Amino acid sequence: MEEVDHLAHERSKTQFDVAAMKIVWAGSKHEFEISDRVSRLVASDPVFRKDNRAVLSRKELFKNTLRKTAHAWKRINELRLTEEEAWELRFYIDEPAFTDLHWGMFIPSIKGLGTEEQLQKWLPLANTMRIIGCYAQTELGHGSNVQGLETTATFDPKTDEFILHSPTLTSSKWWPGGLGKVSTHAVVYARLITDGQDHGVNGFIVQLRSLDDHSPLPGITIGDVGMKFGNGAYNSMDNGVLQFDHVRIPRDQMLMRVSQVTREGKYLRSDVPRQLVYGTMVFVRQYIVFNASYALSRAVCIATRYSAVRRQFGSQDGGIETQVIDYKTQQNRLFPLLASAYAFRFVSEWLKWLYTDVTQRLQANDFSTLPEAHACTAGLKSLTTTATADGIEECRKLCGGHGYLCSSGLPELFAVYIPACTYEGDNIVLLLQLARFLMKTVSQLGSGKKPIGAISYMGQVEHLMQCRCSVQSVEDWLKPSIVLEAFQARAARMSVTCAENLSKFSSIEEGFMELSADLVEAAIAHCQLIVVSKFIEKLQQDIPGKGVKEQLEVLCNIYALSLLHKHQGDFLATGCITPEQASLVNAQLRSLYSQVRPNAIALVDAFNYTDHFLGSVLGRYDGNVYPKLYEEAWKDPLNDSVVPDGYHEYIRPILKQQLRMARL
Amino acid sequence: MEEVDHLAHERSKTQFDVAAMKIVWAGSKHEFEISDRVSRLVASDPVFRKDNRAVLSRKELFKNTLRKTAHAWKRINELRLTEEEAWELRFYIDEPAFTDLHWGMFIPSIKGLGTEEQLQKWLPLANTMRIIGCYAQTELGHGSNVQGLETTATFDPKTDEFILHSPTLTSSKWWPGGLGKVSTHAVVYARLITDGQDHGVNGFIVQLRSLDDHSPLPGITIGDVGMKFGNGAYNSMDNGVLQFDHVRIPRDQMLMRVSQVTREGKYLRSDVPRQLVYGTMVFVRQYIVFNASYALSRAVCIATRYSAVRRQFGSQDGGIETQVIDYKTQQNRLFPLLASAYAFRFVSEWLKWLYTDVTQRLQANDFSTLPEAHACTAGLKSLTTTATADGIEECRKLCGGHGYLCSSGLPELFAVYIPACTYEGDNIVLLLQLARFLMKTVSQLGSGKKPIGAISYMGQVEHLMQCRCSVQSVEDWLKPSIVLEAFQARAARMSVTCAENLSKFSSIEEGFMELSADLVEAAIAHCQLIVVSKFIEKLQQDIPGKGVKEQLEVLCNIYALSLLHKHQGDFLATGCITPEQASLVNAQLRSLYSQVRPNAIALVDAFNYTDHFLGSVLGRYDGNVYPKLYEEAWKDPLNDSVVPDGYHEYIRPILKQQLRMARL
Ligand SMILES: Cc1cc2nc3c(=O)[nH]c(=O)nc-3n(C[C@H](O)[C@H](O)[C@H](O)COP(=O)(O)OP(=O)(O)OC[C@H]3O[C@@H](n4cnc5c(N)ncnc54)[C@H](O)[C@@H]3O)c2cc1C
Ligand SMILES: Cc1cc2nc3c(=O)[nH]c(=O)nc-3n(C[C@H](O)[C@H](O)[C@H](O)COP(=O)(O)OP(=O)(O)OC[C@H]3O[C@@H](n4cnc5c(N)ncnc54)[C@H](O)[C@@H]3O)c2cc1C
Repeated sequence: MEEVDHLAHERSKTQFDVAAMKIVWAGSKHEFEISDRVSRLVASDPVFRKDNRAVLSRKELFKNTLRKTAHAWKRINELRLTEEEAWELRFYIDEPAFTDLHWGMFIPSIKGLGTEEQLQKWLPLANTMRIIGCYAQTELGHGSNVQGLETTATFDPKTDEFILHSPTLTSSKWWPGGLGKVSTHAVVYARLITDGQDHGVNGFIVQLRSLDDHSPLPGITIGDVGMKFGNGAYNSMDNGVLQFDHVRIPRDQMLMRVSQVTREGKYLRSDVPRQLVYGTMVFVRQYIVFNASYALSRAVCIATRYSAVRRQFGSQDGGIETQVIDYKTQQNRLFPLLASAYAFRFVSEWLKWLYTDVTQRLQANDFSTLPEAHACTAGLKSLTTTATADGIEECRKLCGGHGYLCSSGLPELFAVYIPACTYEGDNIVLLLQLARFLMKTVSQLGSGKKPIGAISYMGQVEHLMQCRCSVQSVEDWLKPSIVLEAFQARAARMSVTCAENLSKFSSIEEGFMELSADLVEAAIAHCQLIVVSKFIEKLQQDIPGKGVKEQLEVLCNIYALSLLHKHQGDFLATGCITPEQASLVNAQLRSLYSQVRPNAIALVDAFNYTDHFLGSVLGRYDGNVYPKLYEEAWKDPLNDSVVPDGYHEYIRPILKQQLRMARL
Repeated sequence: MEEVDHLAHERSKTQFDVAAMKIVWAGSKHEFEISDRVSRLVASDPVFRKDNRAVLSRKELFKNTLRKTAHAWKRINELRLTEEEAWELRFYIDEPAFTDLHWGMFIPSIKGLGTEEQLQKWLPLANTMRIIGCYAQTELGHGSNVQGLETTATFDPKTDEFILHSPTLTSSKWWPGGLGKVSTHAVVYARLITDGQDHGVNGFIVQLRSLDDHSPLPGITIGDVGMKFGNGAYNSMDNGVLQFDHVRIPRDQMLMRVSQVTREGKYLRSDVPRQLVYGTMVFVRQYIVFNASYALSRAVCIATRYSAVRRQFGSQDGGIETQVIDYKTQQNRLFPLLASAYAFRFVSEWLKWLYTDVTQRLQANDFSTLPEAHACTAGLKSLTTTATADGIEECRKLCGGHGYLCSSGLPELFAVYIPACTYEGDNIVLLLQLARFLMKTVSQLGSGKKPIGAISYMGQVEHLMQCRCSVQSVEDWLKPSIVLEAFQARAARMSVTCAENLSKFSSIEEGFMELSADLVEAAIAHCQLIVVSKFIEKLQQDIPGKGVKEQLEVLCNIYALSLLHKHQGDFLATGCITPEQASLVNAQLRSLYSQVRPNAIALVDAFNYTDHFLGSVLGRYDGNVYPKLYEEAWKDPLNDSVVPDGYHEYIRPILKQQLRMARL
């Protein structure tokens, strides 16, 4: 194999220790070592090949995914991988599959909502995959509004069973991943009814398919919901539809940690607080934020490498042309995304800590930090997934026409990523939840109740309402305290203005409906502040490695200042900065871009992605783009023959003017 | 067939004459009549069925497109359709195909660049489709920079021929639609070389395939470039790759209107000005703007209807829930897009007029308006396609989870639309072109040369630099003159600031590179002003029909004010409006949304789209969404069997703990 590295020259310009940066990105030496080893393991195993996904039919694609999941499970057992390693293995296989839901939702739900007894019964089965489970909450008619679910679970005291039933078409379960073709079991959310009384939505463990021959059990209708966005992409997942026709399950399959139904059919609430459920949500959402940083960094890696390979315009007299990464417009679109990838990585690290902290407190019966943690994770899930979805598509556009080819990897990355803006909470609905929390915080400011956690800046609201930004020169915008205060002042002022406007309405609810667009903007301002502040906090830590911290400082400044520019309307309207200061932001950004430029390739190399994981001809490590693009093209099934199937029936008759007689 | 109309109640609330609005949307009674008739013709013809596109393999999809194009050509001839009608027929078939390039690029290029003799020879063949042509400009290595193309056409005086050759891998033609499998001919762009001298890029008519058996002619290698973004989508098009190995064509196949090569090999320029080429660009780009309004309006139609059907939250005591279209956040995302669809429609109408005007002037040897028209069309192409691509994806998100299903129609609409941001000029490259024109205009302001056309507002630059917005109340933002002046002042000030900053650099080129991000923003401001002003001008015309004008006024205000809010940073930074005036914009927008709300469904009905054309279960005219979603799901190939293919090999061994022995 000839070894070329078209990016060697770029790499030689690097001003920092890439190996050290890899560890910062991974989180720790331990995490780097695992992800490095496991990603290579996946890349070198032919079963995990994924470059043919775009041309597979739905059935082939799905069968291939079944093969990969079985092989993965086999390897996990053969190699005795730890839980952490197994998780990484599935991650690097990079193909949505029923196992995501089995490990990511089914088991955690049982852990969160099951009694000690239930855990003892179900976890051993699930952990060894003797049963496979999914998470069946959403219905055709209800997603965001979980309280509106229609499926019923009616207790029958005669037989000590629940009867699960789908009373309407819209009550059909719709969307659960893994449900359509694979899962043998599900955690099903249904309205609990005892003695004619509706106790609201509860979780139940329901067997769906026979463990003998996999056919759906009597009274159960299941299917796949059909094709989703893109080729390959999420179509390897069997998102399903499910209907119950009076299906009976034993009473002890209701998940009974927070409420119980007794043998007599009495409904009881345990003393375990309901908010416990929020703990799981914090967990799932911090994982989504983590994923956002991975998806965005992948796209950025592809676009950055290709931008260094691609040359267009600017040659004098037939000389070599300008690399498109040298155009300031390209940098202005690309580098803020590069900075965002790092920013999201660090905020997800902090969220992981937050989750641990919340969990420990819950165990000690301390619920004080939960509402803030819940609101802030909801907001960050929304902020990071929206930015990532948009960012992937921007990266595709940054690659010009070639980004539109599947072989660029970007179309599939986009198609597979975007549902993250919708599942686990529609992004707008989540921001509105956060906004409610913000308004509550503002309304309690006078009451002596001190805001805690990420919203503690609101404690200095009086200062923030009247402080003036002291920037006078381009360099002033590099001072973390100045940047932070500008973001805090903007967020505080937007929240306070919303609260003032709300108070003008006769009812809070009416005001909330009417002003919801403004409230969403205030929530976004709050979230952006959190990301900026966590990046700044990260940089206050000790970070080893030559030049590593310096590079991260540049990225942190790019992240903050590019947001400041993009949202300068907020900052100016609230008087947090002046027009003159806004224009200094632009000047500083240009200088920061120049500082990133020589390190750009090394900064994406630091993600340590294998070519297999990237799945992109444009993003190849060696930059050998053109010959490989050419090679890929010829693999298309349409190139099986020179003269296309259909020529004789449909092209020739046109050319030969014989169409009148033809029967088409 | 049962007739339901779940949206009847919505329709009963309409406050304007929908039939009259349909004519406004279509452009005229004549155009309405044709599009109405032709779209129904297509919808009722089973050959033009398209609901199965998502599950077809590449080959099936492509063959099916060949069948549709042949059938279309047959029907066009049988029904003796006019050119206008034939164009509409292909439009409503709604499937990218080689005919788009044959009619849209191959024939127009010959018309634009060919001599009278050449037209006489080639047009009759092309018009009857005895030959099929494509437009082969882009290469693997060069797209935006046309002057960098590498393919050569070397004149051989011995044989009176040109020798077409691809000297490098990157010189392979790459992307031309219709090239891969169908075209018999192409307009090929290549560097003209005579007697060792390079005269730059010229167009040549080249036969690619045998008219007998369709095989590529000797020395020609052709293939398809492979899968592109999405299922269905643009994969019905055979975008191709092409290489020449010393292929000879007669001298008279060089397109010789603007320059010639004589029998002796002398290179001559005719007195026809080169700018003529711009005329064709203005034509193609105005058509792209027209298409933007169609694509965006389709997405908006789907999201609007579904938002009226979808209910979520807000029920008191089990009563009926709130339609999501009643949430202000939903309105704030959706209604500006509805307004944009109308705005783009009207600006495309104006561009059509502009093209006619320019053409007439060119015929009279008046080139005075061409540079402005060219710059402005470039900018509007960029503005409208970017907004449309983003808008389609926003509409998909507005549909929650169900928008992610192919049956919603939105994934394919997005995938098929987005290359419009890249082809016919990368959107950023186009804005930079416009920015150059803006800077030139500013630099000439003192010189007595009066700016004309859409940039004539720059003539009042002194007034615009110091005027103050007079808005004092919410209602003031409804005055067209006030809105217009704010947009003019913003655009003028941004351009002037850029020009001032440019002048600080030692060379204009260096400054242009360094400030390009700011220049792009100035160009966008200019384009938005044009769209706003053309919408306002439209409303100064007589518009018949009860309530029609009033509705359009509301939409015009929404378009302008939502932009004003989104870009308030520009307006505030340049001092065009004050923070107080900015907050009045928000209040006025909320009131405008309430005025649109009862008319929303009627405003999308006015597009007059058949359910066939919309291709969306969520956007159905009758709003009967849920039963149809359910029906669609079962058609997925994965639902052919209850137990999926692969169960025995890959699922059962997991469940039965028999994986160790399995060979996968
Ligand atoms: C790929 C994918 C996988 C999924 N996997 C699972 C799974 O495994 N298990 C499962 O149970 N579910 C799953 N889901 C379902 C998912 O959780 C829901 O789609 C999601 O919760 C959004 O709900 P919805 O679709 O009802 O959106 P809707 O609520 O109908 O949203 C439609 C629109 O209404 C707006 N809206 C709704 N309520 C309000 C409000 N109060 N105020 C303002 N605006 C509002 C939204 O912003 C949106 O614009 C999956 C979905 C997808 C796409
Ligand atoms: C679906 C599809 C159909 C097509 N059909 C045809 C066809 O029929 N015939 C044909 O000939 N071609 C066709 N094309 C090719 C198309 O015209 C080119 O892709 C387009 O011109 C963009 O050029 P590029 O791909 O070279 O992008 P590039 O120029 O490589 O763009 C890459 C990046 O560089 C940036 N960039 C480039 N130059 C500059 C600059 N000077 N300043 C700042 N930034 C810069 C761009 O903004 C972009 O972000 C098609 C393409 C597609 C995707």
